[in-house]
Parts: sequence; structure tokens; C-alpha cells
Amino acid sequence: MDENFLKEDETLDDLQLKGICVIQKKDAFRFGVDAVLLANFANIKRNATVIDLCSGTGIIPFILAGKTTASQIIGIEIQEEMTEMANRTCKLNNLQDKIKFVNKDLKDLEFIKSLPKVDVVTVNPPYKLKNSGIINPNDKNAIARHEICCTLEDVIKSCKSVLKDNGRMYMIHRPDRLADIICLMRKYKIEPKLIKMIQPNFKKAPNMILIDGQNNGGAFLKWDEPLCVHNLDGSYTEEINKMYGR
Amino acid sequence: MDENFLKEDETLDDLQLKGICVIQKKDAFRFGVDAVLLANFANIKRNATVIDLCSGTGIIPFILAGKTTASQIIGIEIQEEMTEMANRTCKLNNLQDKIKFVNKDLKDLEFIKSLPKVDVVTVNPPYKLKNSGIINPNDKNAIARHEICCTLEDVIKSCKSVLKDNGRMYMIHRPDRLADIICLMRKYKIEPKLIKMIQPNFKKAPNMILIDGQNNGGAFLKWDEPLCVHNLDGSYTEEINKMYGR
Repeated sequence: MDENFLKEDETLDDLQLKGICVIQKKDAFRFGVDAVLLANFANIKRNATVIDLCSGTGIIPFILAGKTTASQIIGIEIQEEMTEMANRTCKLNNLQDKIKFVNKDLKDLEFIKSLPKVDVVTVNPPYKLKNSGIINPNDKNAIARHEICCTLEDVIKSCKSVLKDNGRMYMIHRPDRLADIICLMRKYKIEPKLIKMIQPNFKKAPNMILIDGQNNGGAFLKWDEPLCVHNLDGSYTEEINKMYGR
Repeated sequence: MDENFLKEDETLDDLQLKGICVIQKKDAFRFGVDAVLLANFANIKRNATVIDLCSGTGIIPFILAGKTTASQIIGIEIQEEMTEMANRTCKLNNLQDKIKFVNKDLKDLEFIKSLPKVDVVTVNPPYKLKNSGIINPNDKNAIARHEICCTLEDVIKSCKSVLKDNGRMYMIHRPDRLADIICLMRKYKIEPKLIKMIQPNFKKAPNMILIDGQNNGGAFLKWDEPLCVHNLDGSYTEEINKMYGR
């Protein structure tokens, strides 16, 4: 590998997946277990086209490129620095033919509508309401975590705009926003079809939620068995280890 | 106990709760674990007034009478035979001062609006859409299980009509109806505040859902840790045994 690919404040992390390595900042936004969970939840059919909103480091497109037979993946990210980094990761892994990152605001509906309609949208959006909690002084993290640049409604509206009829939307979010998520999905006629709760361990309340919606789908909501991140002794569960290629 | 209280096709079941016994039909509608879960989920403050919709055998009012300091509980049940039976259970347990069952249709909004506004509504409604699945040839069960006499919207509309401002609604239902439940609750301005999933065991997908809504409440949805009915070896969990007084 050409070491010049990396800047001083960056690290290179091996996904343990077909040799793919991802560039991240040392102390700014780094991908978390939520992105890995979402990429593993998304059901990507052969040759499917995918748009990943709020793409960040590009982790979801890179996992999907490694695990699925998606034909084209476009990542959309509002932060220029992140987008540049993700495109560098792309070149580093020779995935330019399959993945492309675009530095755009998902609220830019003129741009969003200019995109080809896709089979699947994935999105790991900011979880927190703009005025809730302490805003991280590091802007990059704040934009990724709080609804500063886009609200949940902006996200779902963009999903609607890029999805084919019957296309699927996969999102990870916090359980406390589920009522908002469901009502907004129905407002934009993306029907919730499958929910999977994520729990720290099997005795604890869920702290993340995976939701699969179908554009213009009929009403029937299935539930997966919950996924636990840890065993009671604090070690990772088999499901999590498998996702991390361990 | 006066044995004449019981008809030939009835049984008397001990709730293991302050000596309360409940009359049930031998082969028709009998209360299930769902009613017991709901009665244990409802948070009833001192001297609270309660209405229980779709009251059936009256199981929820009887458990609440045994476990809480509710001052008045009214059960509303559309089936005359059930209502008569529940009122007989009431006398048998000397609970006539606290509990009353009324044979009424919850869609009868003139009647519903004539009721005093209450602190809490509990409801274990029919789960299944009218045209889904095989309709039980036994009418009593079909009415309790399928939306023959009332829809989910009828139920939530009635809850709205009888609740005080900030009063709470507690419902048990199937997870596959959660999108409908949340959207209808918000339509009638009963805000979902707490959800608890019920799983057959910790490895399985939830098959029941408990939801707590607040009339005109603000948006913030908490999640409880899930409750498992069985251990992996098939035995009941400690939580369930505790609810059944074992």
C-alpha cells in the first residue's frame, strides 16, 4: 500500500472482509457498531443499485461492496473532508468502478432528484434532536450525531425521492425515535416491513433499532429476533464477532 | 363458597392473588398470559380510576383490584354472557364496591362519553384483522380475537374519549400491528411513552407488545427491557412465575 494515501491524523482499519481497509480520522468521526449492524441488516439482491445517505467514512458502501453483489453504490455525505477521505478509501481498495462518494446535502432535492432511482437506500442518520443533549464541540461529530444539517423528515423525504417503486430503505436509529420514524415513513408512503431491535445484552432494553421499509409497500410489519451486542460476561456475542470477521 | 355461583360449563380459577378466584368458561374464551402481562404492566397510582375495555372475563380488573390501590374500575364488554359472568365473579369475591362490568359496545360513543373521565384505560383488544386468518367457529372467541365488533381505531378512539388530560392508556397487542398502533395513537393525540416487547424466549422474535400512551403527552418514547415468557429449557421465567404468584 502507498503510505501517502494516509494523512497524519488518519488511521487505516482493516474490515476483515476481502482485504478492504477504511481510512478514518484518529480523533474525529469514526464508524461505530451501528454502521456495521446496518450494513449487515440490509438485504441487497444481485446487481442491486444502492444509495447510502449520511455516508461518513463510507463504511456502509465498503461493507456492502465486500459482502454483496450490489452493482453500483453511491454514498452521499455533506462534509467535504469526509467525502474526500471516502473517495481515497475507494481508490485504495480499487473500488472506483463500484462505489462513488458525492459531497452533497441530502436536502438538496434538485440534486437528489437528478440521481438514478435505486433498489436500496441505506442510512445511518444523526440520531439526536438538534436541541437535545450536549452538542459535541468537534463539528464533524456533531453533524453526524445531531440533527444540525438534516432532520429525520429530511432523511426520509430523500429516501423517498431516490427509491424505485417497491425499493427498500434500511435505517438504523434510536428506539426513542420509533414513533417519529414510523409516522414519517407512512407520511412518505414507505411502509415499515421489518424491525430488528439491538440490545446491549439480552437482559437490557434496546438501544438501537434497525428498520426496513418498502416504497409504496403494503402494511405488514415483521419483527426479527433481537440482536445482542454482548454476552452477560461482557464479551461480544457470536453474531457480532461474525460481522467483524472474527 | 356457594357452588351455585358456577354453571356447568364453567370453571373457577384461583389467581393466587389475595384469594381472588375468576369464573371462566370451560371451552370458550379464557384469559391468557397477555391479560396477565397487561395487568402487570399498567402503572396504577393510588386511588386511580380505571376503565378496562374489551374486558372479557374481567381478568384485568380482578388482577388490578388485587395488586393496586385503584379506587374504581369499570369493565366494558360487548358480550352479554361474559359480562354476566364477570359480574358474578365480582360478587363471589366481594368486589362490587370497587369493580363493575357493563355490557356495552365500545363503539357506542354516546355511552362512552357519558362515563366519568378516568386516569387509566387498559385494553386487551382483538388482535387480528377481520379478514385475516381462519375465523374461530366459536363466536365468543372470534369476537375476542378478530376485529369483528371493533377495529383498532375504534379502540383508540374510545380510549381517547374516556381519558383525563395526561391520563394513561395501556394496551397489549401484536408487534405486527405496531405501525398502525403508533399512527392511530398519534392521530388521537395519545403519545406513545413506553414500549415493552414480550418474547417467547430471549432468542426469539417478540410475539406481543405492551404499550403505554399518555393523553396529550409530549413526544418521548422509552423502551423497557424485553420480557421473556420461557427460559431456553421451556420452563417459565422468574418474571412470569412471579406474575402468576408461583
